[in-house]
Amino acid sequence: MNGAESLVRTLLASGVDTCFANPGTSEMHFVAALDKVEGMRCVLGMAETVVTGAADGYGRMAGKPAATLLHCGPGFANGIANVHNARRAFSPMVNIVGDHATYHRAYDAPLTSDTEGLARAASHWVRASTTSAAVGADSAAAVQAANTAPGQIATLILPADTAWNEGGVVAAPMPAPARPKVAPDTLRTIAQALRRKEPAVLVLSGHALCEAGLVAANRVAHVTGAKLRTPTQVGRMARGRGRVPVDRIPYMVDAAIKTLAGTKHVVLVGAKPPTGFFAYPGKPSLMAPPDSDTHVLARPEQDAVDALNALADELGAPAKVAIPEGAIKPQLVQGKFEPEAFASTLAALLPENCIVAEDGVTSGRALFAPTFNAAPMDWLQNTGGAIGHAFPCATGAAIACPDRKVVCLQADGAGMYSLQSLWTQAREKLDIVNVVFANQIYKILMGELVSVGAKPGHASNELFDLARPALDWVKLAGGMGMEATRVDTLEGFADVFKSACGRKGPFLIEFRI
Amino acid sequence: MNGAESLVRTLLASGVDTCFANPGTSEMHFVAALDKVEGMRCVLGMAETVVTGAADGYGRMAGKPAATLLHCGPGFANGIANVHNARRAFSPMVNIVGDHATYHRAYDAPLTSDTEGLARAASHWVRASTTSAAVGADSAAAVQAANTAPGQIATLILPADTAWNEGGVVAAPMPAPARPKVAPDTLRTIAQALRRKEPAVLVLSGHALCEAGLVAANRVAHVTGAKLRTPTQVGRMARGRGRVPVDRIPYMVDAAIKTLAGTKHVVLVGAKPPTGFFAYPGKPSLMAPPDSDTHVLARPEQDAVDALNALADELGAPAKVAIPEGAIKPQLVQGKFEPEAFASTLAALLPENCIVAEDGVTSGRALFAPTFNAAPMDWLQNTGGAIGHAFPCATGAAIACPDRKVVCLQADGAGMYSLQSLWTQAREKLDIVNVVFANQIYKILMGELVSVGAKPGHASNELFDLARPALDWVKLAGGMGMEATRVDTLEGFADVFKSACGRKGPFLIEFRI
Repeated sequence: MNGAESLVRTLLASGVDTCFANPGTSEMHFVAALDKVEGMRCVLGMAETVVTGAADGYGRMAGKPAATLLHCGPGFANGIANVHNARRAFSPMVNIVGDHATYHRAYDAPLTSDTEGLARAASHWVRASTTSAAVGADSAAAVQAANTAPGQIATLILPADTAWNEGGVVAAPMPAPARPKVAPDTLRTIAQALRRKEPAVLVLSGHALCEAGLVAANRVAHVTGAKLRTPTQVGRMARGRGRVPVDRIPYMVDAAIKTLAGTKHVVLVGAKPPTGFFAYPGKPSLMAPPDSDTHVLARPEQDAVDALNALADELGAPAKVAIPEGAIKPQLVQGKFEPEAFASTLAALLPENCIVAEDGVTSGRALFAPTFNAAPMDWLQNTGGAIGHAFPCATGAAIACPDRKVVCLQADGAGMYSLQSLWTQAREKLDIVNVVFANQIYKILMGELVSVGAKPGHASNELFDLARPALDWVKLAGGMGMEATRVDTLEGFADVFKSACGRKGPFLIEFRI
Repeated sequence: MNGAESLVRTLLASGVDTCFANPGTSEMHFVAALDKVEGMRCVLGMAETVVTGAADGYGRMAGKPAATLLHCGPGFANGIANVHNARRAFSPMVNIVGDHATYHRAYDAPLTSDTEGLARAASHWVRASTTSAAVGADSAAAVQAANTAPGQIATLILPADTAWNEGGVVAAPMPAPARPKVAPDTLRTIAQALRRKEPAVLVLSGHALCEAGLVAANRVAHVTGAKLRTPTQVGRMARGRGRVPVDRIPYMVDAAIKTLAGTKHVVLVGAKPPTGFFAYPGKPSLMAPPDSDTHVLARPEQDAVDALNALADELGAPAKVAIPEGAIKPQLVQGKFEPEAFASTLAALLPENCIVAEDGVTSGRALFAPTFNAAPMDWLQNTGGAIGHAFPCATGAAIACPDRKVVCLQADGAGMYSLQSLWTQAREKLDIVNVVFANQIYKILMGELVSVGAKPGHASNELFDLARPALDWVKLAGGMGMEATRVDTLEGFADVFKSACGRKGPFLIEFRI
């Protein structure tokens, strides 16, 4: 057995059965091994950002890693942006990156590059196999690393000769350690602080945003009066009717500071101290009041659900607490696009148990609160800020959950980073309704420019305006084999969205706004 | 003056007047400075691979660097593939990468990433400014580094507070050192070896492939009988009628070895020892016979033209030697696409003094020899192997040379990595005729799979076949505001190509093959 076959067999034995791929010549023996061994679903992305973004969406929804198969150096580099987003979402991911044969590197062939340096800049775990005999064990270790809480990026670099040489050994799966529990002392200290009934906010992230985590957090809130918040972006959150409606900390610095104003205790539950997405002259980096105390209830890798329930118990909270309702009732609104009106309309139409992948940038900022009373669903956001995330994330989520409708909300400027995803969606006939917010401008940047006190001029006009020429998303989708239509009113959107949700398969709606 | 303004003014003073950009929030003060200061042409790319690929094409044709303006971490990462290609072409390039404010990094905001690690993996020169007062001098040093022969990648990382703080100082231009001359001893030693009239090959790369370099090499060949060759890919080569017809070393290992078989002396002129693009089991990494002697006439940074002329003089070559004609006469061929027939047809039609940007992959391999007798032109190839290069390279070349027609030859699978380039071409109304070879398969990979002795199976079928669904390049171009048409015969191509060359502005021809 060659090294490549030992890789594929080890991945399968370790529970990795989906491979998003964009291979090159140095990966040919892996492709040949995939041909030989049954059981691995291979999904092609026609750009590496599709591959890694799809693996992110898959990891978030499957709760286990997909593999990616990527070409050396520039191939991996093309995928780094969505690896970064995945890292910020705690998605498990196993990147298999082919590289030149060990002995060929010395000759500095055209594609030779610092693959390991690139991998280290983007991954939690990096290893380069040096012999075919090591590939199996290295692969099992990579899967273990990816599965280690809270979910990690593992990148295994495989020189071509480790793939083609005989001597491959299939390795036994290496289970990942269970999430560590929170120490009783920590619970008691935080309970003591919260008992004072001073203004407190629990910031919930990662694992804490599953339904059980939200229910447990609600128990704590019920008995202490603490407020609940998510960070500005959530990797995956259980939302909709019957789920605890926890709003997010706003993106805009002033609004975030206002949200946390007066807080005495910030309790971090799998979250980091709330930070501005960017720094701005004269504004603070941290959003909580400088005189507040920060408590870490659970680090991202710890068992946040258990910790929240233990804290609730410690505080004497009842086992069952009523779930509050979101304030805003979904309703169909008519007229031109307006963020809150769109959010309300979408909330009225989202199918039961759907998955929402959202990278709406400016058009998406108002979506959170108005959708608390939508049908129950999971909401995935761009956690790392590398834009163009929703198209590929939706692609991977649909592969992970073939029985659930996926709704992809993608800003147009951002979507252009990863429009190749539409081809994979069409090829795999994935059940995804894509909504493109076509405002034809990098609107967020125009806002940021004004917020630094500058007046737009010739350069910013060149660099932010996307209307010359206008992107035609119906043609772009059609060019990749996907049906699409354009709407410019909320009622038009509602009609088309309902009909797209009523059938299976990929579709794209361009909302000109 | 803030740091951002000192950057823009220093770049302009240093001769950098073109900026390919895809900025984010951390670059807002630079955009504001571009608004304020006149003289910098800003060109937007809707994906960073367009930005860096265009800067590569610009650098090759302008002979001086463009600036790129890129967002921190993932933004730069998205551009690395074409930075890699530029590095392999010795293109000068100044990357300006914004980053979080120095004091904001500690809080690990979502976009925080190892920008410097990524930059180091891809650049010759990296610096991160730490104060606004340093930005001017650091920018001048970056331009100097980029202009240092043979052309380098300089990446300057500018934390946001170095941009917005006052105290910026415009720096004086720092001239790059002249290309070092080759030592007389080296010339004498190589002349001595060549005088033996043993089989010799001069491998010409970089700077040596300009018209004067080829003429000088032809003098050496004339007097010694040495053969002339280029590497498999050329960054920029003067070609067509009246230029010395130097063929390239073939891509396929067996053919490359055959080409160099029997060679006793390999003389490197700005080139590296000929190496296989990839390693293959049982095949050598080096293409020249193991018993041949390798001589370095000029390293890439040295003055190869001067060295070739000095060598010719040393060998007593006449000052003027007749330029040989290429063997193949261009002619219009009819029928279906076939690589040689297409090459002959194209050679008959290429406009005088055009620029050809080629990333034809399998469809492009036969293009070189049949185009020696085309009209005089410059030919740019993908030197680094990160595919999808021709679209953005052509974009940048057209910005550099607005009075020359650019012909872009792009394979379809590769073109999907950078199709966003078409939007920039349309926006800037660039004079480019794009030809897409639509074979609807990663044909090169299918060939490589077979060459490793494997039979295509279910996985390779999933991963190489691009026909399900078929890409429609006419729609894709139309979606980005570019006129396009489809042809499926050589005579159809000839008609459309002639008419597209007869007018100004961007156009795309999908050749279904």
